[in-house]
Parts: sequence; C-alpha cells; structure tokens
Amino acid sequence: MNKKQLVQEIKTKKSFLCVGLDTDINKIPKFLLEFEDPVFEFNKRIIDATQEYCVAYKPNLAFYEALGPAGWDSLKKTIDYIPENIMTIADAKRGDIGNTAEMYAKTVFEKYNFDAVTVAPYMGLDSVEPFAAYTEKWTIVLGLTSNPGAKDFQFLKTNRRRLYQTVMDKVTKKYDSSNTMFVVGATRGRDIAEARKCAPDHFFLVPGIGKQGGDLDEVVKYGFNNQCGLLVNSSRGIIYALNGREFDSAAAKAASEMRNQMAEILGKRNF
Amino acid sequence: MNKKQLVQEIKTKKSFLCVGLDTDINKIPKFLLEFEDPVFEFNKRIIDATQEYCVAYKPNLAFYEALGPAGWDSLKKTIDYIPENIMTIADAKRGDIGNTAEMYAKTVFEKYNFDAVTVAPYMGLDSVEPFAAYTEKWTIVLGLTSNPGAKDFQFLKTNRRRLYQTVMDKVTKKYDSSNTMFVVGATRGRDIAEARKCAPDHFFLVPGIGKQGGDLDEVVKYGFNNQCGLLVNSSRGIIYALNGREFDSAAAKAASEMRNQMAEILGKRNF
Repeated sequence: MNKKQLVQEIKTKKSFLCVGLDTDINKIPKFLLEFEDPVFEFNKRIIDATQEYCVAYKPNLAFYEALGPAGWDSLKKTIDYIPENIMTIADAKRGDIGNTAEMYAKTVFEKYNFDAVTVAPYMGLDSVEPFAAYTEKWTIVLGLTSNPGAKDFQFLKTNRRRLYQTVMDKVTKKYDSSNTMFVVGATRGRDIAEARKCAPDHFFLVPGIGKQGGDLDEVVKYGFNNQCGLLVNSSRGIIYALNGREFDSAAAKAASEMRNQMAEILGKRNF
Repeated sequence: MNKKQLVQEIKTKKSFLCVGLDTDINKIPKFLLEFEDPVFEFNKRIIDATQEYCVAYKPNLAFYEALGPAGWDSLKKTIDYIPENIMTIADAKRGDIGNTAEMYAKTVFEKYNFDAVTVAPYMGLDSVEPFAAYTEKWTIVLGLTSNPGAKDFQFLKTNRRRLYQTVMDKVTKKYDSSNTMFVVGATRGRDIAEARKCAPDHFFLVPGIGKQGGDLDEVVKYGFNNQCGLLVNSSRGIIYALNGREFDSAAAKAASEMRNQMAEILGKRNF
C-alpha cells in the first residue's frame, strides 16, 4: 500500500485509526479456548467487527512469539485474513545491521507479507537501510515514544537538538515520506509539534491514546498535516473492550466511537 | 549461570569465546538439507565440535524467525542441546516497554530458557527493567556497536558525555554487574577503553572480531578487567569456516585457534 492509497483509505473511511492486535491468550474470552487456534479466532472476529472503522492493523510480535511456533501460525493466518485495502504493521521494533537486519526485513515483508514494520534507530542509519530498501513497503522508525523512560535518552540535548529530533532529522534527510514513517508518542502536544517540525510530510504512527493517557484532539492539533499524516493506534481499549461472548460487538462499538471522533475532526478540516 | 560460575568457566576452559549461531539455511553445507531439521543438525554438530573451546553460544534470533514456525523449533532444540555449563545468549536486540517487554522477556527466559538476551536502550530504562527483573538471568544492553552507523547517534555528545556513555552510565547506576552486561563493539581500542571507564565491573559482549575487522589483542588491552570481563563473539569465522562435509572439524579448528590465543592472553595475565 503506497501513500496515495493510504490517504485515499483515510478519506473513504473517514478514519485514521490503527487497531493494535496485542492478542494475549490469557486475556481473550475463555470460550475461544475451545477453538483450534484461539488467537486467530479472536483476531478474525475482531477484524470482522472493526475493519470498516480502521485503516491499519498492528499485530505486536511479542504476543505471537510468546506462544512459540503456533503463535507464528496464528500471526500468518491473521495477516492473510486482513483485507488488502487495510495496512498491516508489524510492531517488532527491530534494530540490527547487515545480514541480520536483512533477515528481519525479509521475514516481515516477504514471509509474513506485512506492509510495514517498526524499527529502532539506536544502531544508526545502517540499521534502517535494509528495511527502507524495500521501497514498496513501509519502515516506521521510533522517534519519540510515550513511556516515562523516553526522557532517559530521547530528550537528551545533542548540540541544540534533542536526540529524537536528531534521529528524525537524519532519517528524513535520507528517506522521504513515501515509504518511511515515525513512531511519535502521544503524551504531550508540544512534543508532537516539535516532531512535526522535524518531519512535516511524514506519517506518524501514534501510540498512547486511551490506556496510556494521550488525547486525540491534542494529537490532531499538533500532528495533523495536509495529508492527515497520522495513524492513531488503540489496542487494549478496543480489543479488550469487553471480556465475554460479545467482545467483538464491544470492540466494534469502541472502534466506531473513535472513528466517529476522527470523522468529525476530518470533516472540520475539510479532509 | 551467575557471574561466579561464568568466571569459573573462563578459568577452566581458558577461553572467553562466544560462538555466534547465525545459522542460515542457505549457507550450511548442502548435504545437511536431507536431514529432518537441517538447522538443528548443523547446530548440533557445531556444538559437538566447539563446546570445549567456548563459554557461550549466541543464536541470532533473526535467522530462526526467518524460517517461520519450524525455525523456532530448531532454536528450542538447539538451546536444549547446549550443555548446562555454557551460557546461552539470545541475540534479539529487543526494545519495548510494559507488557510487551514483559512478554519478550518471558519468551526468551522462560519459554526458550536462555541465560541472557541482548536489549536495545532507545526507549529508556523502563525498556530494560522487564528483562533485568529476572535477576537469575542476564540482560545485555547495547552500549557501543561496531557498525559504521554507530556514529550516527551513539557518538553524539549529550552534555560532555557521548550517548553510548550516557546509556552505560544510567544502566550501571541502576543495575550492577551481577546480571547486566553491555554490547561493546570491537573496531577501535580507544572506544573500548572509554566504555570500560563507564562500567569497570561489567562483562562486555564483544562482536566484530574477525569478519567485522576487530582485533583480539586490542580488545583485551583496553577491555580486560580483573574478572576477565569479556565475552568475545565470533560467528561466521567459526561456523562457516568450511562449506562441506568437514565443516564441523573446520569449525573446531577455528574455535580452538581462538581459544589458544585466549589461553595465551589469560596465561600472561595469570588469570
């Protein structure tokens, strides 16, 4: 899925919602455990229930890896089940170099056929390159994260720029917005504004709405650009809206409420 | 394996060698492809051939993940096959927070029973904590890496300290050398000396010897401490020493040569 297609999907669905599939076998409704593949069964029903309200799904690889080999089967089935017009993001935060990074990229982009992957920048631009070399796929670099520990290193001043700004500066200098994005956390509007200055045209994948305390209006106020430029993620608030037989309709309700907020925001901006 | 046991193994074997199991199904000798699990068969023979010369094995998770579910089976069999007295390190460079990081930690430490895992620090100390909370296991934080891209961010000055020094300062302030180590790359001796000043007592896992151009004498000159403090990794130089039926004896020869160099170094230092 290229940028033009993504923007078109946002316009069509009036949504820039990404649903995080952090599917934990210990948290899904008990009745699903009778199915052959409970994790896939949960995801399938969540996808059926929410696909009209979102433009992306983001499985968190930690949750699938934790199940051993069977978890990777559940993941593959999930990706195959997601409709073509919805972006799939592997939340993997991979960060390595050379043949190792090439191997990670090949796995997420070719073997599991994800559209996008999250990548950690600590090792430098040569740890981003093997992913970005897939020009038809998306590389989403950690810029600014929403956890308290973000202060430990990301906010350190390196000359006159904070580390996260330097990361974003260097990445945007080398890679344009056609196949790179940034993770930009949603806890403080001013920080999102600073991140937007670093990368005016790039899409931001924004976690931290809902459970982590971020505010949608604030994110939009400071992060919106002329192509929307935002994918706002919600995981637990949607997929675990209810623990019971009606979990999927509860997820649909939570997703549609977020979509309605987003539709109103997009409408006000004539997008 | 605790620090005392590790140091004892180094003394007994006169070696601080870590063998990297970057096992690529496209690079192993063709005759192994007839076995039911070629990757495990390769690893098994490498382990049989090299175990007397090394104190650690480091499977690189990218290579196993790339094979899909079967790769995780090969990995599990490999870990189970490694003798108890040899440290197992998951080279995974995980970096995430909260329940995701807990999931990653649980997977490597409990499901696959590794002794240690490599972790990326970009997100902050709260991305290290879920791993370090396993006090009987080892968390190996990326400090200074040996790739050219290390210059992009790790060497940036944050106040008077470079980023990698700040990372090492903050980690050592919170976690002592009993269950944390650092990845410290081996391309320049002076940098290793600077890293050693940040963490006098911690073990360093040193990649970059051999194919990546690092020099063992230089690493020891600047990195050795009173408990050795070094695990020097070699991957391709050992496991791919020869592509053919005799790959395992070639690996044994390459590993024993490195061990002999190490034994000489340890002998000179009366260790």
